Amino acid sequence: MKVIKGAEVTAGIQAEIEEELKQLGGYIPTLAVVRVGERPDDMSYEKNAISRMKKFGMGAVTFTYPESVSWEEFSGEFQRINQDDSIDGILLLRPLPPHLREKELERMILPEKDVDGISPENIAKVFSGDKSGFAPCTAEAVMEVLNRSGIQIAGKRAVVIGRSMVVGRPLAMMLLAEHATVTVCHTRTKDLEQTCRQGEILVAAAGRAGMVTEEFIGDGAAVIDVGINVNEEGRLCGDVDFQRVSDSGKAGALTPVPGGVGGVTTAVLGKHLVRAAAEGMRKRGER
Amino acid sequence: MKVIKGAEVTAGIQAEIEEELKQLGGYIPTLAVVRVGERPDDMSYEKNAISRMKKFGMGAVTFTYPESVSWEEFSGEFQRINQDDSIDGILLLRPLPPHLREKELERMILPEKDVDGISPENIAKVFSGDKSGFAPCTAEAVMEVLNRSGIQIAGKRAVVIGRSMVVGRPLAMMLLAEHATVTVCHTRTKDLEQTCRQGEILVAAAGRAGMVTEEFIGDGAAVIDVGINVNEEGRLCGDVDFQRVSDSGKAGALTPVPGGVGGVTTAVLGKHLVRAAAEGMRKRGER
Repeated sequence: MKVIKGAEVTAGIQAEIEEELKQLGGYIPTLAVVRVGERPDDMSYEKNAISRMKKFGMGAVTFTYPESVSWEEFSGEFQRINQDDSIDGILLLRPLPPHLREKELERMILPEKDVDGISPENIAKVFSGDKSGFAPCTAEAVMEVLNRSGIQIAGKRAVVIGRSMVVGRPLAMMLLAEHATVTVCHTRTKDLEQTCRQGEILVAAAGRAGMVTEEFIGDGAAVIDVGINVNEEGRLCGDVDFQRVSDSGKAGALTPVPGGVGGVTTAVLGKHLVRAAAEGMRKRGER
Repeated sequence: MKVIKGAEVTAGIQAEIEEELKQLGGYIPTLAVVRVGERPDDMSYEKNAISRMKKFGMGAVTFTYPESVSWEEFSGEFQRINQDDSIDGILLLRPLPPHLREKELERMILPEKDVDGISPENIAKVFSGDKSGFAPCTAEAVMEVLNRSGIQIAGKRAVVIGRSMVVGRPLAMMLLAEHATVTVCHTRTKDLEQTCRQGEILVAAAGRAGMVTEEFIGDGAAVIDVGINVNEEGRLCGDVDFQRVSDSGKAGALTPVPGGVGGVTTAVLGKHLVRAAAEGMRKRGER
């Protein structure tokens, strides 16, 4: 079984980003991370995203607000960030407290700065297979892992476990656009193991630690683990029981957690940021 | 095998529309059909849509343009129709000639008048399972056929043949939102027959006359035929070979063509129109 290392995929993306940065004539793209409150998940992702942007030679600024921030103040701030020409891309950490209207922010964010694909414009593009927009970074990270590991997608049976708006649904549409025959499974799926065994590509994005065991794996399947969970011993782990799947010898390839898809997600964020910057410069007539 | 008649589904939708019309205090919702050129398909659908709206007690007006209409003129006209308070819903017949920019019109159409679900706002809502928008009428017609025929969706294996933006893709998302385990097949699917046989619900939306034979049908499957094709003898027919599938005794239920999903599509259009009118009146403070 081949263990697919996220770092190798990231290195390929980084090389492309560096090429594209050279085209910007010294301009340094800047990401705005917008965070409300201090959820450890958010802060960890923010930290990773910022250090990754810096490593890629780009900038990042954070805008943080207390959970008590009013809608009026927050939406005003968000609009200001949105309109600020020195900001090329915006990452809004979610979920937000309920009084901050996510749906309105999704419609407010400029599609060309929406580097994590939350706006209707970008969602509609992902849905229709139009690659000119930005897809959610995690979904696209799975596509990067597959494509850069030489795993053929066209004509393959792909099974996705999970139907969230950040992974399952957009990924299903992206796999479909690449001509996979796509099945989406979820908590209401009966015969889950049998359905998953049919996947030549199996993507686990259910958010349940170690739920995917050898019973889920078809012979030679490429298994991509999107889960980021903390197990009973407090250790980071994926949706796939790595040991059991690895021992079974059934999978052809498997991504580990940590060290798999997670890091690729922020690399995709970087790829989106440099593209957003290039398009912004074109729009402002600076290129 | 039960033959599911579109007329029965339509009658149920019509009863609901009549109820909702009563709430509008005499206001008569009006559909604008926008057509460019004189393609027979378009003209046939337009004729059906208009007579259906009238039968439901609603109005319809057509705006027709020659294929030679300029983008400037057409987009100006479209914007005028869009802004006209006497128009509650807009049906834009497509495809348009290439010089008329469909993508721009999709972004231009007001989501609240977009009764056939072509705007990014409505597409994003279908994608996320948010029912507050308008789904493409044909995709929703399939859901109406299933729901009004008492076919359970939750937990079932649903297989959709076809990945268009008017049926396959939105329908896959709508079935998913109702908790089916959904597989989308297409021309690049291998083992197509075997994959289809796994469907407890099988939706044929490939646009290929008679391609679905008894080999595609699992025991007792509910088969919904969305195809509208003209066969070699010049007769209207679906994607399902009705005779062979019927003779095989394998399907539990099947929709005929004509007399199946087609008529339900315009009923859904009517349902959307009355809802658009009610929302428009609320917005203008008339209710």
